[in-house]
Order: sequence, then C-alpha cells, then structure tokens
Amino acid sequence: MSFIYKDLLGLQYLDKKDLETILDSVKPFKTLFTRSVKKAPTLVGKTVVTLFYEPSTRTRTSFEIAAKRLSADVVNLSVNASSVVKGESLIDTGKTLAAMNADYIIIRHSMTGAPEILARALDVSIINAGDGFHEHPTQGLLDLYTIHEKKGRVEGLNVLLVGDILHSRVAKSNIWALTKMGANVAVAGPPTLIPSNIQKLGVKVFYNLDEAIKTADVINILRIQLERQQENLFPSVHEYVELYQLTKTRLAKAKSDVLLMHPGPMNRGIEISSDAADSSNAAINEQVTNGIAVRMAVLFLLKPNRSKNEN
Amino acid sequence: MSFIYKDLLGLQYLDKKDLETILDSVKPFKTLFTRSVKKAPTLVGKTVVTLFYEPSTRTRTSFEIAAKRLSADVVNLSVNASSVVKGESLIDTGKTLAAMNADYIIIRHSMTGAPEILARALDVSIINAGDGFHEHPTQGLLDLYTIHEKKGRVEGLNVLLVGDILHSRVAKSNIWALTKMGANVAVAGPPTLIPSNIQKLGVKVFYNLDEAIKTADVINILRIQLERQQENLFPSVHEYVELYQLTKTRLAKAKSDVLLMHPGPMNRGIEISSDAADSSNAAINEQVTNGIAVRMAVLFLLKPNRSKNEN
Amino acid sequence: MSFIYKDLLGLQYLDKKDLETILDSVKPFKTLFTRSVKKAPTLVGKTVVTLFYEPSTRTRTSFEIAAKRLSADVVNLSVNASSVVKGESLIDTGKTLAAMNADYIIIRHSMTGAPEILARALDVSIINAGDGFHEHPTQGLLDLYTIHEKKGRVEGLNVLLVGDILHSRVAKSNIWALTKMGANVAVAGPPTLIPSNIQKLGVKVFYNLDEAIKTADVINILRIQLERQQENLFPSVHEYVELYQLTKTRLAKAKSDVLLMHPGPMNRGIEISSDAADSSNAAINEQVTNGIAVRMAVLFLLKPNRSKNEN
Repeated sequence: MSFIYKDLLGLQYLDKKDLETILDSVKPFKTLFTRSVKKAPTLVGKTVVTLFYEPSTRTRTSFEIAAKRLSADVVNLSVNASSVVKGESLIDTGKTLAAMNADYIIIRHSMTGAPEILARALDVSIINAGDGFHEHPTQGLLDLYTIHEKKGRVEGLNVLLVGDILHSRVAKSNIWALTKMGANVAVAGPPTLIPSNIQKLGVKVFYNLDEAIKTADVINILRIQLERQQENLFPSVHEYVELYQLTKTRLAKAKSDVLLMHPGPMNRGIEISSDAADSSNAAINEQVTNGIAVRMAVLFLLKPNRSKNEN
Repeated sequence: MSFIYKDLLGLQYLDKKDLETILDSVKPFKTLFTRSVKKAPTLVGKTVVTLFYEPSTRTRTSFEIAAKRLSADVVNLSVNASSVVKGESLIDTGKTLAAMNADYIIIRHSMTGAPEILARALDVSIINAGDGFHEHPTQGLLDLYTIHEKKGRVEGLNVLLVGDILHSRVAKSNIWALTKMGANVAVAGPPTLIPSNIQKLGVKVFYNLDEAIKTADVINILRIQLERQQENLFPSVHEYVELYQLTKTRLAKAKSDVLLMHPGPMNRGIEISSDAADSSNAAINEQVTNGIAVRMAVLFLLKPNRSKNEN
Repeated sequence: MSFIYKDLLGLQYLDKKDLETILDSVKPFKTLFTRSVKKAPTLVGKTVVTLFYEPSTRTRTSFEIAAKRLSADVVNLSVNASSVVKGESLIDTGKTLAAMNADYIIIRHSMTGAPEILARALDVSIINAGDGFHEHPTQGLLDLYTIHEKKGRVEGLNVLLVGDILHSRVAKSNIWALTKMGANVAVAGPPTLIPSNIQKLGVKVFYNLDEAIKTADVINILRIQLERQQENLFPSVHEYVELYQLTKTRLAKAKSDVLLMHPGPMNRGIEISSDAADSSNAAINEQVTNGIAVRMAVLFLLKPNRSKNEN
C-alpha cells in the first residue's frame, strides 16, 4: 500500500505491488480533468524543474501541465548539447538545482543512467523522462494504465510491441511493467532492430508482423526514428513500410477488439497508416490524457527527502 | 449582447455587433492594470497553450501575460520549422494538446488557414495569433479599441494604412474590423505591395503618401519586413524611405489631431522616423497596453466546448 | 533603514547602509526554504520579465524561482543576438514591456550600461543581471551575504578574487561591495587579465597566487571563459592551470578556515580542482541557495514607480 521511493528511475526497479499502487492513484487525477477547475493544491510551494538535454515538446509539456495542475512552480531548462560540452558537469548542475531547493528534477538525457547519477547525489526527487536507450518509465506507466483501463486487466493479455525495439526506451519500460504485471509480451520488427538477448526478459520475438498480430490483445506501435536509416539498421523506408507498417488491412487480421497504441508523435505513413491510427481500435489520444494523470500520480507519490526537515 | 464563438480565427467572420461586444468587454480588464494586484480569477484551473510556428516574442508575451493575469496555467511551445518537417502533422499536434485538456490554443503559423484546421478538428478554443498573410485578429481588435478609445468613435473616421499591405495580416484584420464598424479605410504604399483587388473590400488606394495623409484621422504604419527586398518587391530601402517613411514633416501635412499607430516592433528610420514615433500624435505604447486587455477580453468571451461537460 | 531605489544597476551606486539593509532582509526569505510551502504572497499580481540578451540558465533560473516564490507572474524572454540586429531598439523593447505593465525587468546584456538605459527611460524596476564587463550586482550581494553568514562579519576580512578580473562583472560587483563594507580586497591572476588601474578601487594586486593565498580569509575563484584564449590574453590552459588553478595543495597554504567560493558554473580542472571544489572549505552550493534568497530580498526592497498610482 505504501510507496516509499524518492525517485522514479525505471520500471525495472519496481515490483508488481508498486505498479498497482501507482495505477490506483491515477484515477482521482484523471477525474479532475472533467472539472471546470482542473487543479489540486498538492504541490503548492514546491519547485519542479524540467531539465531536458534532448529536444522534446511532448513529454516536457505533459510533465509541465501535470506539475502546474498540482499547483507547483515549474521551471523549464533546455540544455543543448553544444553548451554541455563546455559547461559544468551533470552532477554540478544537479547540485545547483538542489541548492535552489528544487523538490523534483525531471530529466531527459541521451546517456543511459544520467537520472540515476542525480538520484544518488541529491536529496531531490528525480524522475527519468527518458535516458539513452534505457527507460522512459512514465511512458511505460501510462501505457500500462491505458491497457488496464481499456481491457479491465493486464494479467494474461497478449501485448505486442512493434518496431525499433533496440533503440526504444519506451519498449524497455513497457516490457518491464507488463511482464511484472503478468502480461505475455512479444516484440516484432526487423532482426537488426531487436536486441539479441531480449528473450531473457521473458519476451517472445517475431520477425513476421502478420504472424505476430494474430493473437495480440494489444498492439503498441513504436515511433521509427528515420535517422536510424543512416546507420544501415534497415535498408529503406519502403521496405519497412512493406513489412512492418501497421495498416487497416493488417489490423483486420487481429482480434476485432485489439487495442492499438502509439507513444507519439506518429509518423503517419511510416510505422502506422492513417486509417489504422484513426480507427476505433486506437487509444492514442487517451494515452496522452492518461499521461498527464499518471505523471500527476507519480509527482504525488514520490517522497522528496526534503520533507525530512519539515516534521 | 451574447458572444457564442468557440474560436477567434479572423475579424472577417465577425459582425459589427460582435466587435462591439468585444470592445465593451475590454475596459474592466484595462482598469485592472491600475490596481496593485493585476489579476482576476477568471481562468483559474484552465490551461492555455501558445503554439508558435514562427518566432515571436511580442505577441506571445502579450498573450502569456493576458492569460496569467486571468490566473490560467500557461504552457509555451515554440516549434521551429525544421522540426515540423520531420515531425507530426499539425492536426496530430492539436489533438495531442486537446487530449492534454488544453482549454485554449493560441497559434501562429506561416500557413494561411492553419488555425481554422485546428478549430474544425478540436473542441479546444483556437485563437489565431497570425496565419500567413491572412489575419492577426487580436492585433486588429487592439487597433480598433485604441482608435475608439482615442477618438471616441470609429464610424465615419478616415483611417489610412501605410506600407506593405500585400503581406500584412495586420492590415487585413484592420480592414475587416474598420470597414464593418463604418470607418473609411484607405491604404498607401508601393504598387507592388498593394493587392490588386483590394478595392473590393471597400478600401481606397493611394500610391502617393503625401496625398493620402491629408484627410486621415488615423494613420496606422505597418512594419516593413526588410527581407521583402530580396523578392524585388521594392527597389531599395532608400527609395522606400523617400516615398513612404512617415516623418514629422509628412505628419505636419495631416490633421493636427491625427492619431498615429504602429503594431511594432518599429524599424525606426525605415517606415517611421523617430520624431514621428515619439510625437504626441503617437499611441504606440497605448496599443501595447490595450493589446493585453483585448486578449484578456477575448479569452474571457470565447467558449471552449469543454464547458459542455461541466453543466 | 529605508531603501528607496527603483532599480538595482550596480553595487557601485549603493552605500554601506544600503548594503546592510539588503543583508538584513535576506534571512526571512532564506528561512522560507526550510518550510514545506516555500512561498510568500509578496508579489502576487505583479509581472516580472526576464530579458536575457546573453544565454544563461543559472542566473535566469535563480531569478525565476525567486520571483515565483514571491508569487509573481514571470515571463521569460531570451533574445538572441541575431534577432537584435534586425530588431527594434533596446529602449523600444523596454517601452513595450513597460506598456504591458511589467513591474520588474531583469536584464542581462553584453553592453555595459544597457540596464541603466532602461532604468532612465522607464518607471519599471530594472535589475541588472550582468552587463558587459561592468557589474552583476546580485552575484556581488550573494557573495557578500555568504561571507557574512559564514564568517560572522565582513569588515577587516582579507578577501582574494582569483582569475580573469578584467572581464569579470562578478569581480567588479564584489570589489564595490566588499570595499564599502570594510574588507581588504586583493586580486590575483595573470597580468593580462587584471585591469591596470584597479588599485584605484582600493584593491591590492598579486600576480603570484601562492603569495596571495597566505593571508586570505576568503578566496573567490572566478570562472575562466575558455574563449579568452583566442584573444591571446593567456598563453595556454596548461599554463593557467599551473599558475592559477586553486588546488587542495594550494589551499593547504591558506588559513585552515579559509572560505572558498565560486560563482559557477565551475570548470573543474581549469580554475579549480575537484578536490578543492568539494572540500569542506567550499561554500559553493550555499552561494546558490543564498542567491535565491538575495534575489527575493532585492525584489522585495525595490520600489517600482508604478506603486505611485496605487495610493
């Protein structure tokens, strides 16, 4: 019942009970959105810093709105890569923000483990908003919540992740959360984009999407980073589209009530066709709404050590 | 008396009564600025997103201050052109913000009609903060309000717009508002910068500024985009200055109580001389103050459909 | 006892009594940071604009948090150099913000005297957040406060500033504040980086750091701008490190209770070694915490003329 973490670094580090505690906490925040005044006083007088070393509008905006709806003061810091080179170390930046009495730092960084470095060094609550190819835990949580909300359960469901599993932190966080909750997780994509040892996480691997799709209760389509082509990890967009784009035709081979998700932003016509994205199976906009409620729940549940001083 | 619009896309779509309703609503917000606490609780718990696809500090800041003085939570998104190319569609961005329960999206976009695309797709209130060469309705409204405040009326006044009418959304919004309110609108500028069919809007055309100026009650000087020179639309800055710069000398040929306006930011020494800009005829800073009050009135008057759910 | 200034342009313009008034006002704000709700209603309904013509996250963030903890509405404007070139004049930008009823403008500008230009032209309270090589008064105040807090007094202390005195506005503001408060100020650095006439300010000059360090009660290490090398103002990083880096070895030659400060961000391994920066003599993070409390005190003490209208 109790949730005693200072930080949210990854879903890898939580157990089933923790995940259930978070899921249970989301609903009241979501209910708030249907009210005229969509605010709660939970974090009044607290300072939330978003510290983004990679460009992002979507995730940063979601956290900013979540924190403001909890009445926190929010400060946005975008650090571009060039200024990091000549600038201070990550840990000095963190210590500076801690010295400013920040209560939460929400960090996105291209380096795996960057949030953990801050979490160990600081009393501040650290929330990982995406680190390298490692994890993006609030995305994993909102996907989990959306599945639970739409399907009524997670345990026993067949969940299929499609696309670039290798580079996707969304995939990693989904796999950790879903397997802990008892779902059967499978991945489908080009062999070059699937980690060789992924079965060890309890995940089934498909290279043929049409095969994989048949038994799925949930399909989560990942965003393709078109830059990956330059790394020769897949031969051409045309070929990717041919083999792995989720189309309405492919969707017809799945269960009729299959739930279709995408973390956004979508490349329509690449990893997903427009008719699939706009189909009644898709819960893509619900994911966004749930994302804010989930982030509010996480901000609510985490315990900045600072509170030690307050009796 | 009632104002039942969800969106503000352009002054073209409002009638005289609507414009009067807006004018009548501005005053209480302007009065607020003379108080020690310049805030009203009107939009507490509402989320206002500024979504700017073109760089702007002036208009964005004015909207941001207006929304914050109404106690809204404000989130700023600047999208640079390069990220749009590889990014999601405008409508998907809009749907994402709607799914985040944004109540208002204030959009500036280089494409004419972009705000309308969002307005049709979403329940969110859309405010056009400038689209292509089309409209910039809150600028038109603040100009209208400033004229009415300074002159006591709009009907029957001779209002002259000077400069690049062709590319100016400010000019278009001014023309729609002023003609509906019964003003006599004229434009003056180089033939290459005046749309060929502008008379159809009930506007008189002058190519000679000295001629045009004589009968004007109000002169609104538009900003010259110096980049236009590269398109060969006018031969040289020197020539433009010679023929169309509003100088104190030229101002002397106008009525002694002529009202001088400029939407800013001014290119002093190009479209307007410093002595004219700083003359007692100028109401350029009053326009800025009125801009915030007008934007507060617009935010107050519009009806996000979301309120449907609230009884 | 009374503090009647509209602006904070530099510590050069304050006398000892003023500095004491500011120091006395900081404590209650600092106490606030130990509370659960770190906010005071002091500036509710006021508008604070940060107007930064030079990139900065640290100082801007500190001011933003300070203003938000006083319940002000904060608007951030970053103006990059390129847009200034084709843009409006500084004074027109200031007048625009004044017309938006900004109560405070916090400005950083590469041109010495830019804040003063705004202060003379506007009723708004102007706070200099760094102008050219001139002053950075709130940094000087937070350094002063930190020394006073840690040492119990300022008068009679030997304070040593180390590094690039020539280009450092932090050094200038420190020198003004500390000499007025009766400290004995010395500087140490390469001859090319020390202004030739600095003794006139009552400052002792050392070119040998090991010599200078012996009698110091406080050592304030300035950040080295690595770009300066291109101006041939010092021959190599290697040589600078050899002669002027503050190391633990050098620190051992100072008094055992010497107070070590750095305005940040630190170049570890250049002007300061990691073991020195992390030593128990260092108060670098306390400086950051004090920075917010000092800026809150300044915002609290200054008198925007606007209040004239309010009775």
